[in-house]
Amino acid sequence: MWGGRFSRPPAQAAEEFSRSLHFDCRLALCDIDGSLAHARALRRAGILSGRELSALGRGLGKLRALVAAGTADFTTGEEDVHSWVENRLRELVGEPADKLHTGRSRNDQVALDARLWLRGEIEATLGRIRALNGALLDLAERHPGQLFPGHTHFQPAQPVLLAHHLLAYVEMLLRDAERFRGALARTAVLTTGSGALAGTSIPLDRRAMARDLGLPAISANSLDAVSDRDFAAEFVFCAALTMTHLSRFAEELIVWAHPALGWAEIGDEYCTGSSLMPQKKNPDMAELVRGKTGRVTGRLVAILTLLKGLPLAYNRDLQEDKEALFDAADTLRGSLEVMAGVVGSLSFRPERLEAAAAAGFSAATDLAEYLALAGVPFRQAHHLVGRIVRHCIERGQDLPALTLAELRGFSPRFGPDALKILTAAASVRRKRGPGSTAPAEVRKALRAARRRNA
Amino acid sequence: MWGGRFSRPPAQAAEEFSRSLHFDCRLALCDIDGSLAHARALRRAGILSGRELSALGRGLGKLRALVAAGTADFTTGEEDVHSWVENRLRELVGEPADKLHTGRSRNDQVALDARLWLRGEIEATLGRIRALNGALLDLAERHPGQLFPGHTHFQPAQPVLLAHHLLAYVEMLLRDAERFRGALARTAVLTTGSGALAGTSIPLDRRAMARDLGLPAISANSLDAVSDRDFAAEFVFCAALTMTHLSRFAEELIVWAHPALGWAEIGDEYCTGSSLMPQKKNPDMAELVRGKTGRVTGRLVAILTLLKGLPLAYNRDLQEDKEALFDAADTLRGSLEVMAGVVGSLSFRPERLEAAAAAGFSAATDLAEYLALAGVPFRQAHHLVGRIVRHCIERGQDLPALTLAELRGFSPRFGPDALKILTAAASVRRKRGPGSTAPAEVRKALRAARRRNA
Amino acid sequence: MWGGRFSRPPAQAAEEFSRSLHFDCRLALCDIDGSLAHARALRRAGILSGRELSALGRGLGKLRALVAAGTADFTTGEEDVHSWVENRLRELVGEPADKLHTGRSRNDQVALDARLWLRGEIEATLGRIRALNGALLDLAERHPGQLFPGHTHFQPAQPVLLAHHLLAYVEMLLRDAERFRGALARTAVLTTGSGALAGTSIPLDRRAMARDLGLPAISANSLDAVSDRDFAAEFVFCAALTMTHLSRFAEELIVWAHPALGWAEIGDEYCTGSSLMPQKKNPDMAELVRGKTGRVTGRLVAILTLLKGLPLAYNRDLQEDKEALFDAADTLRGSLEVMAGVVGSLSFRPERLEAAAAAGFSAATDLAEYLALAGVPFRQAHHLVGRIVRHCIERGQDLPALTLAELRGFSPRFGPDALKILTAAASVRRKRGPGSTAPAEVRKALRAARRRNA
Amino acid sequence: MWGGRFSRPPAQAAEEFSRSLHFDCRLALCDIDGSLAHARALRRAGILSGRELSALGRGLGKLRALVAAGTADFTTGEEDVHSWVENRLRELVGEPADKLHTGRSRNDQVALDARLWLRGEIEATLGRIRALNGALLDLAERHPGQLFPGHTHFQPAQPVLLAHHLLAYVEMLLRDAERFRGALARTAVLTTGSGALAGTSIPLDRRAMARDLGLPAISANSLDAVSDRDFAAEFVFCAALTMTHLSRFAEELIVWAHPALGWAEIGDEYCTGSSLMPQKKNPDMAELVRGKTGRVTGRLVAILTLLKGLPLAYNRDLQEDKEALFDAADTLRGSLEVMAGVVGSLSFRPERLEAAAAAGFSAATDLAEYLALAGVPFRQAHHLVGRIVRHCIERGQDLPALTLAELRGFSPRFGPDALKILTAAASVRRKRGPGSTAPAEVRKALRAARRRNA
Repeated sequence: MWGGRFSRPPAQAAEEFSRSLHFDCRLALCDIDGSLAHARALRRAGILSGRELSALGRGLGKLRALVAAGTADFTTGEEDVHSWVENRLRELVGEPADKLHTGRSRNDQVALDARLWLRGEIEATLGRIRALNGALLDLAERHPGQLFPGHTHFQPAQPVLLAHHLLAYVEMLLRDAERFRGALARTAVLTTGSGALAGTSIPLDRRAMARDLGLPAISANSLDAVSDRDFAAEFVFCAALTMTHLSRFAEELIVWAHPALGWAEIGDEYCTGSSLMPQKKNPDMAELVRGKTGRVTGRLVAILTLLKGLPLAYNRDLQEDKEALFDAADTLRGSLEVMAGVVGSLSFRPERLEAAAAAGFSAATDLAEYLALAGVPFRQAHHLVGRIVRHCIERGQDLPALTLAELRGFSPRFGPDALKILTAAASVRRKRGPGSTAPAEVRKALRAARRRNA
Repeated sequence: MWGGRFSRPPAQAAEEFSRSLHFDCRLALCDIDGSLAHARALRRAGILSGRELSALGRGLGKLRALVAAGTADFTTGEEDVHSWVENRLRELVGEPADKLHTGRSRNDQVALDARLWLRGEIEATLGRIRALNGALLDLAERHPGQLFPGHTHFQPAQPVLLAHHLLAYVEMLLRDAERFRGALARTAVLTTGSGALAGTSIPLDRRAMARDLGLPAISANSLDAVSDRDFAAEFVFCAALTMTHLSRFAEELIVWAHPALGWAEIGDEYCTGSSLMPQKKNPDMAELVRGKTGRVTGRLVAILTLLKGLPLAYNRDLQEDKEALFDAADTLRGSLEVMAGVVGSLSFRPERLEAAAAAGFSAATDLAEYLALAGVPFRQAHHLVGRIVRHCIERGQDLPALTLAELRGFSPRFGPDALKILTAAASVRRKRGPGSTAPAEVRKALRAARRRNA
Repeated sequence: MWGGRFSRPPAQAAEEFSRSLHFDCRLALCDIDGSLAHARALRRAGILSGRELSALGRGLGKLRALVAAGTADFTTGEEDVHSWVENRLRELVGEPADKLHTGRSRNDQVALDARLWLRGEIEATLGRIRALNGALLDLAERHPGQLFPGHTHFQPAQPVLLAHHLLAYVEMLLRDAERFRGALARTAVLTTGSGALAGTSIPLDRRAMARDLGLPAISANSLDAVSDRDFAAEFVFCAALTMTHLSRFAEELIVWAHPALGWAEIGDEYCTGSSLMPQKKNPDMAELVRGKTGRVTGRLVAILTLLKGLPLAYNRDLQEDKEALFDAADTLRGSLEVMAGVVGSLSFRPERLEAAAAAGFSAATDLAEYLALAGVPFRQAHHLVGRIVRHCIERGQDLPALTLAELRGFSPRFGPDALKILTAAASVRRKRGPGSTAPAEVRKALRAARRRNA
Repeated sequence: MWGGRFSRPPAQAAEEFSRSLHFDCRLALCDIDGSLAHARALRRAGILSGRELSALGRGLGKLRALVAAGTADFTTGEEDVHSWVENRLRELVGEPADKLHTGRSRNDQVALDARLWLRGEIEATLGRIRALNGALLDLAERHPGQLFPGHTHFQPAQPVLLAHHLLAYVEMLLRDAERFRGALARTAVLTTGSGALAGTSIPLDRRAMARDLGLPAISANSLDAVSDRDFAAEFVFCAALTMTHLSRFAEELIVWAHPALGWAEIGDEYCTGSSLMPQKKNPDMAELVRGKTGRVTGRLVAILTLLKGLPLAYNRDLQEDKEALFDAADTLRGSLEVMAGVVGSLSFRPERLEAAAAAGFSAATDLAEYLALAGVPFRQAHHLVGRIVRHCIERGQDLPALTLAELRGFSPRFGPDALKILTAAASVRRKRGPGSTAPAEVRKALRAARRRNA
């Protein structure tokens, strides 16, 4: 392909080191689609005849079918997917294939292929996030009114609704989806027509090419177009943050399944046993999701480090973007899918949750806010309830066991209604306003989340 | 503040290890602003009287002036900025300060403070990007028509306009600005009213608080509100990618200043000398910017690792977000500012650029495209021009020295007009279409960039 | 210092951006020590007279005392600590200070300073690891024979001794210490005499300088000496891995303190409460240690990214190594110290541990191994015990409740002694060989660990 | 394998998500070797008869030959390599295969397999480093006395010998080798006998197993043995730092090949051309090595993040260590090998190097040191030579063009011998002491490096 200027062939070690076909073959369909759009542009530019375009269209169509069917043979020795497509096409249609590369370089071509691939992947990711959110919302709706022990510092803090807890993850995933949509807009950009770096003297109609490919924008600067990998970095960041969210949920599932808590159980079909210990049921899927989080963060580091200090325009270093991108996307896909399955398989133990939500002096804050609403400055109310808690600990009892007399021993502001707020259910009911765990608010939030997830 | 339940005071090592006032004092103004909005909400909720609100308003105003003037004393021993503000306020206004914490926890308060601070920082960042882009556009406009040696693989490739090269960086920075604007929308969200994790029984009007603070949105889930640090991760990612862009430009400036190239010179005021070698003039500012890139990537890793596997809701680990956030922001600020200065100080050597743009067979691609436009399949045209290049290398000459006879010796398709395309100026002029380095297109791109940067 | 060649002074923004005195002042004592060794070498080389050396020795001594006492003023406007020392010295002794920089550059000087500082820090780190290990060993020895629920996949697996569990962390920390000792040997290397990059024509006796400073080796290549930051990268990696180990222990402490498990309690003096929830006792120190882990990993990324693609020899980028190094060291120091305090404050609940160790069919593996020792192929034994476990689950009982008749219903190989192995204590006792949790082995391991930690 | 306790089979998505055979099949030989050692230990423990051991030995031998020949079929549907070996073995020898897993769990088995694999990889890495160092030393010896332009801040600084410059990389790689040897000692440790986490009641002779496998040590704590991945983290760190060193050399090769410098040329067989620009010869191998650096840093981040906050003992997250380890090792292997080839193909342009070494006032430091040796305080000497440089710049000349009269116009201390030090050759010759670029020292350093690399 570029032998004219060279006096010695590549060393075998060099060929092997630089070959990318074994991984960039994933871009084959995108390369074919981009090539067809390019052929049409060359026809418009008068480089190809109508007959040549037809031949190329037929050849590319055959190739597309072959790749889509999974029967393409990628062990044919080419360096990369672009040469593979070109060679196969030449075998199918002859000379017109030699014209197809007019006004195009590997540099703008690979950028387009990667962008087309990533466009599809982001769209699919949005669907997978929607599915996982759907599973979370289904789960929340199956447990209306279920109390749950809200924690901070992994210590019981205040009762919440289970649905409210699950909705926290829905929020994270909705933000993730929003970020992916932003990334999508910056990805779906046509780069061909940029040549190797300077543009081309072939009069290609770039906007028509973009329309052909359903891309809403064309790149504004040819040097940038061939050396920009922001789209890869941004996608992998969005993936790393989504994985981080999944890792938090995975951690909770693992903890909830411990027999001492026993709050939730993951279905057998998403757990594994032990080759040595016959009694074990292990939450492997959640552990794997948690463990794969660092993998995507690591891929992000790889891309950012790769780009650091790279002069314009294209450098071969950029070839390293693809495996990072593919691996991040695959890891995210698998994790989103398996988590949707895990969520669907979850069952809860209401009596355990109920007990846990009530224990641990979880109404203490409500008691302090009761005093505050009765006019006690909050700092004093807080200190006073702290003393009540200590009093209970010394007696080995929890707040619901308090009598009005005991309460009034601490403050005369306590009235008979104070006793009514000492349960988890009351605590949840007393919350006010949007975003809180008050049952009415959670119902509204569920409906809104369904809408936002649509 | 929370002693009631404890039987022993904190160990000194523990206090020192967990103290944050020496860094979170940067949030003081935001904490004060948030506190004022909270006081107003407590007034509406009937917790504070009009008189108490006035007292708090006056106290917070005084405190604000003190902090804004830089005369506040933060060595008063508090654990964090929230306690500092609370204690100072108590000294100024007494008991109403004890009521201010009603319906609020450190968890939702620190999230609000950080968001308010970051809102300001992103807005300022957008201004700094605009300023750097302005400097780049000024520089481009001062050199209309200046040829520049376009490179790929750090080898001369094709001539471009200097303005076109500079516009590639403008594109990167415009994308950065777009990402920061997306981050801003996800940052400017009110979190107070979420309590420690569950919401509060105090009837706070959260939307009114948001309006008070100029925040367009309120958080939708209290558990998420206190444990979410996506805004920090997203900002630091945007900063890391911007730094990566700056590192690429820094690398180019360093290389261009090497005497063997001598394409550009950074002003003395942005260079330093050597304590040992009297002749040295070193591009230290560009080196520092390049070197600081990894620092911001590292801070991103810190935040993502911090969040990995963290159960809901608030955990003390989250305190670690702030130094990462501040350091990333400071590093980005300094780098954007100093790069704007460096760009303003740049001078180019036109004759060197001209020569470099012409050398290295930079018109070879145009020659191949000439043949393609004349009907030669590009693969053959490419091979043929490869042989012409080898012919020149063997004779120790470059393309412009070729005669028509020599050209026609390689292909009869070469006509007399072929000789006219062998210069760098012709190469640039022959480019077609938006995004290319054709002078008319670059002029249009400059105007468009001014508009998009406004 | 290097103005001779420059026609304009540095821009203020440039000065501020490149200044390092506010952080590299931590190197002052090392710079002074290195300067004294350099002065002696200059005396031997005939550059300084005996009188000049005496004057410099006196001046450096005064300066050393000032810095050691913490009363040095570092707000004097110099760019870095080297200029600060030089200027102070000139004020104290006049002209000999002007001679001190002979045959030395900032490049080899800062490398030496950083290495001297790091040597001290690694030695101190080794002491801190020793102290934490001592606290772990004390704790283990205070609970001889205490059973503990060994987990895999955060599910109960098999009983172990608490001491055995604690010894796992001692192992990790002993490996850390070994790595730090390897790093120490590669750090304690003299770099001065390398000049800016090429060596110097001043006949300095480098080996004598190394002896003066207690350094066992001199650098072998001047270009490498001024551009090498491996010592920083290696230290920060060792710190990141140690932090990772601490984060695992921190996670366990946090989980053990949950009331549903209640296995261990951290002393009040290493916990904090809540500003809103009066009942809370939170394991903040453990959370902070866990949260700071990513910070050190991030600093490692910063250093590796910084070095990537940097040509020889010194580049200003390298200035960025120091804040990363200092911050990693400080974070590690604080974490090791606070964890030693936390470990010292830990108390366990024997009855809870005992119950947890016995529950969860934890003797199932022993039962399978019993059959294997009786000649049943392990795969069959495993399956058979799996059925026994299912049988128990269906009856709502655990293994110790089984009768011999029930056991023999599953396999005739069960003899009466099978009933004796169904308790946690028996399970632990039956283990064989070094490294296992058998009480005798754990006693040996404790003694060996004391010795290895000495 | 562990179905006894489960009521539903794994979901297909779960099986696919958790399967590892497609990558851990690389451990097959190690699994076989470990299994043979385990069989021998079971024989000694009386679990296997002599006949059973023979059968297993024959079966494992056949399997080993199959795998070593590359003809093993790993698409047989098992979850991991351990099950694959076990199933194949059962097909070959029947029941004895069911006994082989006695006293062993997947947890200690996979740790052993990974350690055996890594032991081999580190030994091979040491060989590859030795080979690259050998190529560097050969190159240095082919150019004795060749001057080279030493740089700092990518600006000409002082002349050095080319051999001295190359030796800087040899130093880095020798340090890398030292670190790998430290890692090797911590890797070559036997973990079997640790069971799932607690040890085993089967009386295995662990020291005999270690001897069988040529491992010098056995793990000291069973909980640590199954959950420790320090060996993976340490190897990947060592690999990341080695890659960082290679990236620095790669950067230099890329820069040296730019036609404006033209100092070195990489052989055609390690370069590639362009599909669009016929004249291009691009240093792709060096670019790829530089680009792959971040990949290994990213893998390190993955492992450290994976381990962060993981409780004892084994968790399924740990499965994620292997792809990171394999990919880091493969990337390092390819990079070391291709760089050795690149180094072997390098040719230099002596006249260009000579000119570059002489240019840029590179003798300025020698001039200042001349004055210092003549008694001028260095700070004054430095300033004075700075003025001489400025004088030359204004006249458009370099230092060698100075006359004695001109020199004495700046200082009367200049004698006639001052003129003799103004050339690059003299500059290099004047250097003193070990580590410097003085020709005699470089010759000694070369000999020493050969020895240390042996």
